[in-house]
Amino acid sequence: MANSKYEYVRAFERDEMLLPNTWIVVRVDGRGFHKLSNHYQFAKPNDQRALELMNAAAVHVVTTIPDMIIAYGVSDEFSFVFHRSTTLFERRAAKLVSTVVSTFTAAYVALWGTMFGGRSVGGTGKGDSGAAFSSAALVSTGPDLTMLPTFDGRAVCYPTWENLRDYLNWRQVDCHINNLYNTTFWAMVQQGGMTATAAEEELKGTVAADKNEILFSRFQINYNNEPDMYKKGSVVVRDYELVMAGAEKGRGNGNADDDDGEGERGQAVYALSKTQKEKDNKARQKAKVVVLHVDIIKDEFWDTRPWLKTGRPGKVL
Amino acid sequence: MANSKYEYVRAFERDEMLLPNTWIVVRVDGRGFHKLSNHYQFAKPNDQRALELMNAAAVHVVTTIPDMIIAYGVSDEFSFVFHRSTTLFERRAAKLVSTVVSTFTAAYVALWGTMFGGRSVGGTGKGDSGAAFSSAALVSTGPDLTMLPTFDGRAVCYPTWENLRDYLNWRQVDCHINNLYNTTFWAMVQQGGMTATAAEEELKGTVAADKNEILFSRFQINYNNEPDMYKKGSVVVRDYELVMAGAEKGRGNGNADDDDGEGERGQAVYALSKTQKEKDNKARQKAKVVVLHVDIIKDEFWDTRPWLKTGRPGKVL
Amino acid sequence: MANSKYEYVRAFERDEMLLPNTWIVVRVDGRGFHKLSNHYQFAKPNDQRALELMNAAAVHVVTTIPDMIIAYGVSDEFSFVFHRSTTLFERRAAKLVSTVVSTFTAAYVALWGTMFGGRSVGGTGKGDSGAAFSSAALVSTGPDLTMLPTFDGRAVCYPTWENLRDYLNWRQVDCHINNLYNTTFWAMVQQGGMTATAAEEELKGTVAADKNEILFSRFQINYNNEPDMYKKGSVVVRDYELVMAGAEKGRGNGNADDDDGEGERGQAVYALSKTQKEKDNKARQKAKVVVLHVDIIKDEFWDTRPWLKTGRPGKVL
Amino acid sequence: MANSKYEYVRAFERDEMLLPNTWIVVRVDGRGFHKLSNHYQFAKPNDQRALELMNAAAVHVVTTIPDMIIAYGVSDEFSFVFHRSTTLFERRAAKLVSTVVSTFTAAYVALWGTMFGGRSVGGTGKGDSGAAFSSAALVSTGPDLTMLPTFDGRAVCYPTWENLRDYLNWRQVDCHINNLYNTTFWAMVQQGGMTATAAEEELKGTVAADKNEILFSRFQINYNNEPDMYKKGSVVVRDYELVMAGAEKGRGNGNADDDDGEGERGQAVYALSKTQKEKDNKARQKAKVVVLHVDIIKDEFWDTRPWLKTGRPGKVL
Repeated sequence: MANSKYEYVRAFERDEMLLPNTWIVVRVDGRGFHKLSNHYQFAKPNDQRALELMNAAAVHVVTTIPDMIIAYGVSDEFSFVFHRSTTLFERRAAKLVSTVVSTFTAAYVALWGTMFGGRSVGGTGKGDSGAAFSSAALVSTGPDLTMLPTFDGRAVCYPTWENLRDYLNWRQVDCHINNLYNTTFWAMVQQGGMTATAAEEELKGTVAADKNEILFSRFQINYNNEPDMYKKGSVVVRDYELVMAGAEKGRGNGNADDDDGEGERGQAVYALSKTQKEKDNKARQKAKVVVLHVDIIKDEFWDTRPWLKTGRPGKVL
Repeated sequence: MANSKYEYVRAFERDEMLLPNTWIVVRVDGRGFHKLSNHYQFAKPNDQRALELMNAAAVHVVTTIPDMIIAYGVSDEFSFVFHRSTTLFERRAAKLVSTVVSTFTAAYVALWGTMFGGRSVGGTGKGDSGAAFSSAALVSTGPDLTMLPTFDGRAVCYPTWENLRDYLNWRQVDCHINNLYNTTFWAMVQQGGMTATAAEEELKGTVAADKNEILFSRFQINYNNEPDMYKKGSVVVRDYELVMAGAEKGRGNGNADDDDGEGERGQAVYALSKTQKEKDNKARQKAKVVVLHVDIIKDEFWDTRPWLKTGRPGKVL
Repeated sequence: MANSKYEYVRAFERDEMLLPNTWIVVRVDGRGFHKLSNHYQFAKPNDQRALELMNAAAVHVVTTIPDMIIAYGVSDEFSFVFHRSTTLFERRAAKLVSTVVSTFTAAYVALWGTMFGGRSVGGTGKGDSGAAFSSAALVSTGPDLTMLPTFDGRAVCYPTWENLRDYLNWRQVDCHINNLYNTTFWAMVQQGGMTATAAEEELKGTVAADKNEILFSRFQINYNNEPDMYKKGSVVVRDYELVMAGAEKGRGNGNADDDDGEGERGQAVYALSKTQKEKDNKARQKAKVVVLHVDIIKDEFWDTRPWLKTGRPGKVL
Repeated sequence: MANSKYEYVRAFERDEMLLPNTWIVVRVDGRGFHKLSNHYQFAKPNDQRALELMNAAAVHVVTTIPDMIIAYGVSDEFSFVFHRSTTLFERRAAKLVSTVVSTFTAAYVALWGTMFGGRSVGGTGKGDSGAAFSSAALVSTGPDLTMLPTFDGRAVCYPTWENLRDYLNWRQVDCHINNLYNTTFWAMVQQGGMTATAAEEELKGTVAADKNEILFSRFQINYNNEPDMYKKGSVVVRDYELVMAGAEKGRGNGNADDDDGEGERGQAVYALSKTQKEKDNKARQKAKVVVLHVDIIKDEFWDTRPWLKTGRPGKVL
């Protein structure tokens, strides 16, 4: 295929293949979303529709990439997890990252109108209330193109199940810490009439209990009653029949005892017959991809969904 | 900022910083565009609106990323060139690639309606003629979300100006070779009534002159009269006042003699004062980003646009 | 420390940090040892002193680098294993590889005389029988410097204990396969008087049983009685008191149950107090580094030496 | 060659190929040479024999690796430069680094006796004056093995000739700065009877002129008369007939005009016919590898040795 004397330039291409048998996390982050959320007047501290748009885009990514086993989102970021056995794109980093980022971006932009369809978008700078932020709107006026939602991304490898769990724990703890802070801060500003500076100053050095107390005593807000999507973030998974952890162990199917997945050679899934792989993929396609707002730090979530660790599909509902 | 015992997982992040003082090309490629172009009934061998949509998305990328000096597109791919002196995102590969891919994708999806607004999109699977492929359309029906246009991307470094030029030469030669083939093939099929197989068979082993002859003798097509966008691809650059190559040389400003840009330490542009950098950026923002369909293999294109090599802006028109 | 305008060139340095919490294997390979072994008239198929020199060099490496938990050698190669928790040189690949390679090379050259001291080295081209291959000898004549023993090296990461075990299994199986082949081949040539070509031809397609049969029936060699160093290669470890696998389990110290080491966050060893680390290092220094020729494919070797997996020292003898 | 079920572990190997058409510098650094130079009682501030041993080892490396065009050494470090066109080991970083480091180490250890043969080595801890530090000596006593000279190494790529020159400039400027400081410091200590602390204190904040003044007025040392090896470091190159820079230009052989080497596609040297390559290699082997102590910052050194830039051999003397 050397069609010209210039083709030698291909020799400069370098492919980073991510280490086999490691969990691959591709984290997607909104670019300049602070400015963007002001431009489109997202509600503070949480904009329900903006979060649901993130979730819808993530559902689209998980649906179209079967090697993805779970995704977790908070604020303007989403982490997508490929099973350690994946060989998608020969595990080339640039290909994995760019595909996830592009698919997420495409869905986010395409779905924008479904979330913000009936909403005034102040960002057009024209005061046209009620105009949908459809893609048509995006392009009908100059300024909006400068405020297109975009995302960057990166891939990180985690060698063990526990490292992966800790990664997700890190993100969910972060969600909690930030949301408690933001909820308190904005209550002080929006309901308490404080300046941003004054609120910030008062919150400096406070611990969780202090913030809960401020929320409750001054604003009659019980933080526990806040929506789970805000407190726990969003988990995107295929929906199979849950497994009773205890029962599972009783059946001795190995998910409990050697429950590390490391007991295998990282070949378990490769080693499947072609027929079995096709069956697995069909099962995956039949499974509905759902959004949950639940605790993923405790073991229960994982014990009842052993397929997340094995990479094999569960029983389709 | 160690907000939890889980934060140690950040230590697993790895950043590839691209070698300083090399030209960075980020090439964006349509994913599954063969299928997608059938789905949306793109015209063969070239769909003018589809190409113009690619160009519009590329113009958006170049406009919003000032470090980009030129982009070149053909078919469903676009190559974006960062100046060798760029320090954008500390030259982190994943960040550069994902940002370009996401920005390109967002613009492509958002602008879709402007190109295909009045066109029947067979892909909805509903036969609704005339429906715009707006983002609204994209989401109003299930199937279309499975046919969202997405792109992957990769970064390649080129150490010398000549390597970069050869990279672009490679793409433009490729454009020519493919377009001549496709033009001939589709004339044989669409106008000549041949089967795809028969046309392929006949074209096997032919050289350019043979194809030109087939086009002219059988279909009265003079390939030279085909649109330049199809024959030469699309070049996206900031539009400054052209420099007369001869005059330039006469003035001895060094662009001709040490015309390698390698004569510098890769610091020339870093070394600019902050004031000068801001002036440069303002000049860049004033410059219109234009789409050209011209020969970029010959030196003339480059000689008249010395700013492409130096990275400094030219004289705004 | 910017002592000159040239110091910007440091920005071109790139460091690859190996993924945390993975087992690092640095494999060292003799360069051109086929030619070198002819030059110095190594015995075929195995030269005891040459192998013992390899082992002595490996003992030196393990002794001087406490983060090394085990090394395995066969023929002119040696694999050195760093514990997954190591942070030596911040896990920089080039530093780890070059340090191991240089230390191994230095010891190999320095120790040459101890192995080949009383031996005629034909390679001097002077037939001086009995001359020691001391470094003095190496340099006293031109040709020898062109036959200096050197080694290259590379680092490979293995994410799980099982992957690491399989790596070592691979090398030991390789040792067996090659040694059985070589033993048979050289018996046919040296004792059977066959040409190399004829021996090769006859061995083509044979399985292990065939080779055993050839050795026994034609040359009265029982392969099982061959030296273990030839059949099993050489294992280099610190010598602690062996643990009875069963007893260990009884004591419930966790080495059996969660015996994957993956049950930890890859922080277990980092998390040690400074005092504890120093105690560990002292224990390591007290331990003798020994060379064994044993089966490392079966679990027994590992079960009785749990410190290999945990990275903590065992009980010094 | 899949000789066992364990061979899958090879898939974990990763090779970093250094960017084509860039100058590759492999820098080798002594490990713990501060301690080592005390142990073997190297003279301060410069030990002539220790430096000559470094140079001899470097000559060995350049001689045995024809792709190496120049090496520059100072103190316990040596930088080896591969021509930008090299394809040695497919430009694999680990292979290039480990080969250079191992070859350098082997030569350094093997040649030790030639430099320190007649010298008392205090490091044996036995006060045996006059004992040669031959490899035999190294191994005859335990402690010495713990003081084996070893080196680490790293590879850095430089995209342009000017970057490479600046790298070498950086090292030579460093040599000058350090040597002037050390010469002054040790004069103050050894001849002036000052304590190290007092000398350090006085030298703080001084510039070159101050140090020259101290040397001259207090110790009657004219720094300019110090040996060039100490002041300028050591350059190792193949010795061809020097080219008169002016004459060269006159002959218009292109070395002046496009004298950047960047004017080529990085293919100039690849493109050589096989016959030509063999001729080149023979010329290289005929050339003597020499050690110079000269200024390599000024252009003259390079202008008279155009082969360093082109990678083609010069006229053998």
